[in-house]
This record gives sequence, C-alpha cells and structure tokens, in this order.
Amino acid sequence: MAQRYVRVQNLEGQIFYGLLQLSLDVVVLDAPPWMQGQPTDLTLAPDSYHILAPCAPSKIVAVGKNYADHAEEMGTPVPKEPLIFMKPPTTVIAYKESIMYPPQSQRVDYEGELALVIGAPTVGCTPSEATDKIWGYTIANDVTARDLQSKDGQWTRAKGFDTFCPIGPWIVREINPGARLQTFLNDDTKPVQSACIDQMVFSPDYLVSYISQVMTLLPGDVVLTGTPLGVGPLRLGDRIRIEIEGIGRLENVVIARS
Amino acid sequence: MAQRYVRVQNLEGQIFYGLLQLSLDVVVLDAPPWMQGQPTDLTLAPDSYHILAPCAPSKIVAVGKNYADHAEEMGTPVPKEPLIFMKPPTTVIAYKESIMYPPQSQRVDYEGELALVIGAPTVGCTPSEATDKIWGYTIANDVTARDLQSKDGQWTRAKGFDTFCPIGPWIVREINPGARLQTFLNDDTKPVQSACIDQMVFSPDYLVSYISQVMTLLPGDVVLTGTPLGVGPLRLGDRIRIEIEGIGRLENVVIARS
Repeated sequence: MAQRYVRVQNLEGQIFYGLLQLSLDVVVLDAPPWMQGQPTDLTLAPDSYHILAPCAPSKIVAVGKNYADHAEEMGTPVPKEPLIFMKPPTTVIAYKESIMYPPQSQRVDYEGELALVIGAPTVGCTPSEATDKIWGYTIANDVTARDLQSKDGQWTRAKGFDTFCPIGPWIVREINPGARLQTFLNDDTKPVQSACIDQMVFSPDYLVSYISQVMTLLPGDVVLTGTPLGVGPLRLGDRIRIEIEGIGRLENVVIARS
Repeated sequence: MAQRYVRVQNLEGQIFYGLLQLSLDVVVLDAPPWMQGQPTDLTLAPDSYHILAPCAPSKIVAVGKNYADHAEEMGTPVPKEPLIFMKPPTTVIAYKESIMYPPQSQRVDYEGELALVIGAPTVGCTPSEATDKIWGYTIANDVTARDLQSKDGQWTRAKGFDTFCPIGPWIVREINPGARLQTFLNDDTKPVQSACIDQMVFSPDYLVSYISQVMTLLPGDVVLTGTPLGVGPLRLGDRIRIEIEGIGRLENVVIARS
C-alpha cells in the first residue's frame, strides 16, 4: 500500500503531520511533508489522536465543468478554458466530520472530486513544470447549495458555507491516471457517480499551470479538479462516501446547521 | 489625528504590527492589535522598516454592486441581497507596491473601496452584533480585469491576479459614517470616483452579518464593501490614489507583469 500522509490532533490539542501506519499508529513528522518534514521518534497510538483534513490550505481553487458529462447534465457547454472559482479555507472539514446543512438552502448537493495538494510556491509555470508542483492527491467533496448557485450567479456563497469542503482522509504521492472515482449515498452499493479521472477535460497539470498564470499557489494549497456526472441532493442524516482508487474513502454525514 | 495601526517589515525581514507615530517612528506591538497586542519597548525609525499591508487576511470577502450608481453604470440592477465573491490572499499588496498588469487582459480597472478589518471570530451574528466584530477600517483597491470578468462569468480569475488587492496604508478604529471616498488618477486633481460611504446599499454591519451567516470570519480577515460610480481603466505607468476621509491615502503604480 502507498504511504499515507495524514494531519492529526492529539488529546492535548497539538497538531502534527504524520505517516499513517497499517497498525493505525501515526509516526509524527517534524514539518509538513512537502516542507521536507522528517519522521521523529514520536508515535501516536490510534486512541491518542483524531484525524484532521490532511493539509491546511491558504486557498482552495476549484474548477467548474471539468467532465463533459457533468457539464451536459448542468445544461452548459464544456468551457474552452478552465472555469475557476474559490472556496474559503473555513469550508474545510476532515474525514467523518459533519457537513452542516444551512437554513438558507433547500438543495445541497454532493460533488465528488480528486484534489491536488501543492508542494511548492508555483507561479507562471507550464503544464510540464506543474507535474513537480503537485505534491500529492487526496479526495474532496465540493458541497454546493445548488439553489443559491443559480440564484446568486457568483458561486461564492453557494460553495462557501462552513463545512462545505470535506477533504481527506489522507494524501498519497502518486495516482494511476485511469483511477476510478465513485460516490455512494448511505448503504447503497450502486454508485451515484462513477468516472475515471482521465475523463477530465483539463488535466491536473494543465489546471495547475492555468491557475498559476493568475495567482501564486503556495505549499499546502488545494486544487479541486471538478466533478463527473451524477451530482445530486443530500438530505439530513445522509452519509456520503467518495472513493478514489489508490487513495481511499472520504466519508461524512449531513446534519442541520444550528 | 486618530491612532494609525500598521504592519511593517524591518531590514532583517521580521514582521511586526505597530503604532505609526507622527514622527513616522513605529512603536512595535507584541501581537496584532485585535489580539490585544500591547506596545513594547521596541521602536523602529523611519529608515529601518517598510510598510506592509496592515493585516494578513486568511480570506478577503468582497461585495459587488453595493452603490446604486455603480450598479447602474455596470448596466445591472441593485442586488436584493449582498452579492459576495472572494479574492485570494495572494492578491494583497501594500501601499506603494506595484499592481502588475497581466498579459491575459486588455482592460484592467481600479475600484476604490472602504475595507473592514475583522477583529474576532464571527459566525452567525446579527447586524447589531457585527458592530463589535469590525475592529477597524482601511482602504482597498479591488483591481479587476474587466474583460475577463464578463468573459468568465465567475469573477475569481478577473479579480484574483497577484497584486490585485492593494490594502492600506494603515487601519483606524473609527470612521465617520459620512466620510467621502475619492479616487484620483496620476496628477489629476479632479477625482474619477467620489462618494460618501453612507451611500452603500448594504451597511458594513449588514454585510458582516450576512457573510457570517455563510462563513466564519476570522481575526484579520478583510471585507471589501463595494465601489461607487466612476470605475475606469488603468494603463501601464498609471499611479492610482484612493483617499477616504479620516483614514488616509492608498497609492499604487501599475507595471507590466513579466
């Protein structure tokens, strides 16, 4: 199994980057792994930590309509260039944390996505240079208040509610270009989304290059690469699971925002 | 004169929050002023520091069409609710730093705006509660690639280029509700923008309340309150000055992005 890079909090509230062992022990690193963090002598037993989102991005840049079949289901053409938008860092939650359904919306959708984690300051790079800037891969749910998305025109509110960006559970360094992304609702065995990530309109390298022509990407920043066909509504109490082959499974439950 | 709160970098690269004296000395604080930073014994002479943007926001939330006369010049109605969008933290530059004109655009506009600096974690607050969450006021330029704004539909790229958010030069705690905002190009004495901030459609308190129903605002975060009538293009070499009564003057020059 590939090395799994996690970020965890111990019972005293301290936050660490670490390596998740098969035993579920976490070997603590002395810095984020993309900042050359090295293993320390400290190991956390499974009952002595909880898992956080695997990075703490200074920004989350997302891409709209990057799978042709999803663009079609939204009734819109495939963009000629990547269509970028942002989610605030306050949207980030971890594996098994709860998505809070806001009272302003009557239609909140899941969107399973491959997430790229940036490893180095990146500005004005070419697609081939971008390869080295993508430190690793994780899973994200670009939760979206669909009714507010069309009402506002700008997507910031619809995609910007607290808890609207589950990320995790961990980061891996490599991914098979033909890896399959699947989204499951509750105990269903039939996925509501199922696509290979090589069906993206614009590749991860192209996206990072494109974004870096606009804004400097920083270590730990996250790029969401778009969702495939099959988006749909979440209801209170739903459990939503997103799986990507070679990474793992991101799972979150939906509760009411108080 | 009101106390002016600055953020500066000394010749060794260290960053401090401080109080700007009439002598232009800076009395260093031991923490951001909204984190109860207190004066220290350290004072920086004018030739031993340069000024940074007065805060380092984890997010910048901006509001579109918040002056009726600007909505009209854009050919759009006044929104019934605040229309929010975001600029990435990498857009921030300081007083006298250069705005870089990106090669992707043929039309980059200035937008003079009152900026609010948040002083405490803020979630789900009412407008009257918001009053205490606004720690202070500064000046911002919501620089916008107008051609890309209409081309993309989403405003993230158009408003998200590196250097597209000059902020400063300092923060003051109070502002007169009738304070005038004026924008000047180069040596012109006639402003291209001139409006009182009480002409806003949605008040600062209302905006902070509205945004906090969506996303948690954090200390040092910035809310841009919209621009009045008179937006227009910047050209290479232009010097753009935005003045707000009771705060001061934010000034930046436009250069080519290399």
